[in-house]
Amino acid sequence: MSTASAVGAEMHTLVRRLYPLCRSITGDGVRETLRIIGEDLPLDVTEVPSGTEVFDWTVPPEWTIRDAYIVDAAGRRVVDFAVSNLHVVGYSEPVSRRMSLAELRPHLHTLPDHPDWIPYRTSYYQRDWGFCLTQRTLDALERDGDDAVYDVVIDADLADGHLTYAEHVVPGQVSDEVLISCHVCHPSLANDNLAGIAVASQLARHLARQTPHYTYRFLFAPGTIGSITWLARNQHRIDRVAHGLVLACAGDRGQLTYKRSRRGDAGIDRAAAHVLSTSERPHRVVDFSPYGYDERQYCSPGFNLGVGCLTRTPYAAYSEYHTSADNPDFVTPDAMADTLAVCRELLAVLDRDRRYVNLNPHGEPQLGKRGLYEALGGRSDAKQAQLAMLWVLNYSDGDHSLLDIAERAKLPFDAIAAAADALLAAELVKE
Amino acid sequence: MSTASAVGAEMHTLVRRLYPLCRSITGDGVRETLRIIGEDLPLDVTEVPSGTEVFDWTVPPEWTIRDAYIVDAAGRRVVDFAVSNLHVVGYSEPVSRRMSLAELRPHLHTLPDHPDWIPYRTSYYQRDWGFCLTQRTLDALERDGDDAVYDVVIDADLADGHLTYAEHVVPGQVSDEVLISCHVCHPSLANDNLAGIAVASQLARHLARQTPHYTYRFLFAPGTIGSITWLARNQHRIDRVAHGLVLACAGDRGQLTYKRSRRGDAGIDRAAAHVLSTSERPHRVVDFSPYGYDERQYCSPGFNLGVGCLTRTPYAAYSEYHTSADNPDFVTPDAMADTLAVCRELLAVLDRDRRYVNLNPHGEPQLGKRGLYEALGGRSDAKQAQLAMLWVLNYSDGDHSLLDIAERAKLPFDAIAAAADALLAAELVKE
Amino acid sequence: MSTASAVGAEMHTLVRRLYPLCRSITGDGVRETLRIIGEDLPLDVTEVPSGTEVFDWTVPPEWTIRDAYIVDAAGRRVVDFAVSNLHVVGYSEPVSRRMSLAELRPHLHTLPDHPDWIPYRTSYYQRDWGFCLTQRTLDALERDGDDAVYDVVIDADLADGHLTYAEHVVPGQVSDEVLISCHVCHPSLANDNLAGIAVASQLARHLARQTPHYTYRFLFAPGTIGSITWLARNQHRIDRVAHGLVLACAGDRGQLTYKRSRRGDAGIDRAAAHVLSTSERPHRVVDFSPYGYDERQYCSPGFNLGVGCLTRTPYAAYSEYHTSADNPDFVTPDAMADTLAVCRELLAVLDRDRRYVNLNPHGEPQLGKRGLYEALGGRSDAKQAQLAMLWVLNYSDGDHSLLDIAERAKLPFDAIAAAADALLAAELVKE
Repeated sequence: MSTASAVGAEMHTLVRRLYPLCRSITGDGVRETLRIIGEDLPLDVTEVPSGTEVFDWTVPPEWTIRDAYIVDAAGRRVVDFAVSNLHVVGYSEPVSRRMSLAELRPHLHTLPDHPDWIPYRTSYYQRDWGFCLTQRTLDALERDGDDAVYDVVIDADLADGHLTYAEHVVPGQVSDEVLISCHVCHPSLANDNLAGIAVASQLARHLARQTPHYTYRFLFAPGTIGSITWLARNQHRIDRVAHGLVLACAGDRGQLTYKRSRRGDAGIDRAAAHVLSTSERPHRVVDFSPYGYDERQYCSPGFNLGVGCLTRTPYAAYSEYHTSADNPDFVTPDAMADTLAVCRELLAVLDRDRRYVNLNPHGEPQLGKRGLYEALGGRSDAKQAQLAMLWVLNYSDGDHSLLDIAERAKLPFDAIAAAADALLAAELVKE
Repeated sequence: MSTASAVGAEMHTLVRRLYPLCRSITGDGVRETLRIIGEDLPLDVTEVPSGTEVFDWTVPPEWTIRDAYIVDAAGRRVVDFAVSNLHVVGYSEPVSRRMSLAELRPHLHTLPDHPDWIPYRTSYYQRDWGFCLTQRTLDALERDGDDAVYDVVIDADLADGHLTYAEHVVPGQVSDEVLISCHVCHPSLANDNLAGIAVASQLARHLARQTPHYTYRFLFAPGTIGSITWLARNQHRIDRVAHGLVLACAGDRGQLTYKRSRRGDAGIDRAAAHVLSTSERPHRVVDFSPYGYDERQYCSPGFNLGVGCLTRTPYAAYSEYHTSADNPDFVTPDAMADTLAVCRELLAVLDRDRRYVNLNPHGEPQLGKRGLYEALGGRSDAKQAQLAMLWVLNYSDGDHSLLDIAERAKLPFDAIAAAADALLAAELVKE
Repeated sequence: MSTASAVGAEMHTLVRRLYPLCRSITGDGVRETLRIIGEDLPLDVTEVPSGTEVFDWTVPPEWTIRDAYIVDAAGRRVVDFAVSNLHVVGYSEPVSRRMSLAELRPHLHTLPDHPDWIPYRTSYYQRDWGFCLTQRTLDALERDGDDAVYDVVIDADLADGHLTYAEHVVPGQVSDEVLISCHVCHPSLANDNLAGIAVASQLARHLARQTPHYTYRFLFAPGTIGSITWLARNQHRIDRVAHGLVLACAGDRGQLTYKRSRRGDAGIDRAAAHVLSTSERPHRVVDFSPYGYDERQYCSPGFNLGVGCLTRTPYAAYSEYHTSADNPDFVTPDAMADTLAVCRELLAVLDRDRRYVNLNPHGEPQLGKRGLYEALGGRSDAKQAQLAMLWVLNYSDGDHSLLDIAERAKLPFDAIAAAADALLAAELVKE
């Protein structure tokens, strides 16, 4: 098995292990998820009390769910939380009542177009309760008529507690940070976002084996309220975030989609476009829009961070999105390995990209006397390495980064970076 | 009859009524035209004395024409001003002389390619006289030979008098103005510019029924010298002109053409492009050029106002242009109604467009607690209205106007404006 | 014979005359070349001593080559400098030794893909020696085996001397200069760069018959070290160089290629694009790259001059490049005449292009009263000359040059320039 295959299999194993847990924006499902991630990746866990004000929001009560079901007159559990945690609307209030189908129906959610799938629904900020079920199950209930009665139980509570998030930091040579952010609030949905969590974990372990330029901060937090909480608690140091990437929907079979930051030309936007366009992969690069994942928060106008979002098939663009069909079979080891590979390449470019200043800007320096240039002139085939040095020298004017130069030269970034290394060693350019 | 049809018919009636008057850049034809417009639209009329210096120009003598004809040896009026006021070259000096065809010929103008049409010619600033006639009439005269004699009479005078223009103002909530300008100097030409006058009059009456943001100033003035005179007299308050539109050739059967202001990206340019591109209408948007109608003056480099020009078939681009074939049958009620409808839409966008500032720019504000957002999350189909709110919030950074946002979001301007209204009411954005 | 043909033939005669001389980056071959150019074009010759420091470089020793050959055991000169000066590697050290083919082989250079062509090789800054020969000759030597012995002689020396370059200045009305630069360091290569030298010489003679606006400086210098030396010696006055053009490969049968300056939108870049795109010629315009000819030096980041490069088939893009096949038959009188014609057009635009300020910027000035405009208005066909005046007036705001205006108006540059002349004479615009 190749290394990529092995890593792919390892990520898929993590997805399968995390899949059954009932995560939400608070609660023990998130804590257990973070504990499992932490087995391989040391995490700093932060608990923020319910009621804490975070910008325009308030950390909500913690939701604890123990059981939930609908029992028919014959005593059969026709809908059962133990079978799928999607069956209960997230943040449902407790309920324990006998009621007719007529009374129950407003609390039932199905997908008529996909009669065998269970939808995923939540009601975080408006007190409510409900069940999600297949259309086929609902059809069966309908056959017993509106007056049939059911015992309806949601054994849950909403009480003061905490919102939980976790961070892992890979230290770099500078304190400027690259933020990699994954939401961890979805229950049994594999692509959204267990695959992203798995890719992020492997990416962190890969970076820890390097000596990166930037400091890399991995954030595992509930969507929306989690990233807003993190932003509120890190507002004083937010200018350290030089770049960022939201990872989501990282494991389906579709092609990669990179969504630009709100800035549109941030470093990560340009690195992603370069890596994707120079790779053989089919892909899409799309403009920022203010919906999707937590890039919504990082790119809100008060922060406007250079944070993009990498997915395979993006947010809400596949039928299985937010349904029980987004299960571990929907994501593949190969797709996650591919997403990971692109992340590694993208961060390698971002990490190495910077601007230099040519110390001999008047005419070309004499590369030959420094052993940097083939002395035997007059040849019609200049080598790529020599060209790369000429490009770096000519455009190292403080305005053009190595990535700028690679794009202008239509040369691989690595060739440009290697030329910069040689010129740095020869003291022909400086940072 | 629909409202649009009724308005179209009303505009066509005005065109037919104004058609016979002999307008020029000065004189009673203009005064009578303004009096008739003023029956439905109160006008402030300004009379500027001959000899008044206006920038590089001088208001010319006033031209009064009573009669003009060419009588052949048999006593027949072969050319007669009473039949068409196009027969006499505008601003012709008086003449009363018997002369041969050979002597007369340099004063005769025809259109050989359109032998049944009378051309329209003027000689405002160089003392001259002449007749315009059909090629067929000239051919008949030619058959009598060069030596045939004619009595040639132009009963006109050029004497100190006034240049006349008129304004109608629809007051708005701010004193910044939108200028709508129509030339009124052409005699019996329907599309150029009685149709524009008719559309402008209806547009003014429409706006008077609204409570617009901007103040709207409608200017009915002779071409070139009239707009230059108005600019000279209003130079001290010209910075009030926030936007402007020249209306001309508003009634032919051709598609709409919007000509951008010299700035190229003025508010009116962007509003016009948006309205035309989101409508179903075939249309053209063209760059500014320093010829055409009075946008030449408004967009001269010393003013460089954001004034565009809306026509159907543009200036000089149709065969009937400046000929007797530009008669009331050349313009249609439907075409004028269509031009009017686009003007209304365009001004609605322009009038509503502005920039807001998000008052909760750090992360998204919690729309749910304000009742602005469906609380039941997790759905794959976000509604357009919700999207519009997210777009307005994210881009209300003081740099992006509602029109900017609509174009970026690829959402209808109205949806974006409605979102802004909701967010204003919720005090989430301010102007 | 047409004038163009006559000039083409004259240039081709110069190419044939200069072809046999053994030029290098120093030495008598360059001096003799400059003497011959100087017969028709007075030149200021500068001699810079070996050892002079010029930026990062040092003027090398002067190379004198008298004879070079390889004699086989039978006494035959199998390779002979007297037959082609390409046979000896430029800047070869002296050698006089009997050696086996095995010992000699590392010093032999051939072109296996073109077995009848001699390559051109140099080793300026790394002491070495070598011979260039056809693959066919080498194959014959190989048949005698590795042990066959040869007398190998290069009768040359490398000693303190001078680097030689020459300038011709055509004075203009302003001291701002246009630099036309040609490399003169290649031995028997016709397209690279005797054709460029021939075109530059004729261009200088053409300009001397005009009264140009700019001062034109023609520089004939060795490649790389020559232009670097000139830059080092003229650093204090380099800001006089307003525009520049490197001329090379000016005589082959291929289409013209203009390579933009590093700035990308320098005056010469825009003039070249305009002239080439409005001419009927097939051509290419390419972006700057930091290899090619001496534009590498002029466009180094410390100078960043507005210097482009005009060639026919560009640097290294034809098989004959840097081989004995680049002989006088490879270049044609017609191609050189065509290159010259484009240079003349390009410099005519560049020389005439400038910005004016409209002195009557409020509305249009009254052209009629100054005799600049046909007084008889109302015509549907405005003349190009009148349009050109309106364009020049409207865009003469200090920001737009005549070339800007010509491109925007889609009118010929000459029409715009003529309009500017008329408006200058009428004191309606000023410089």
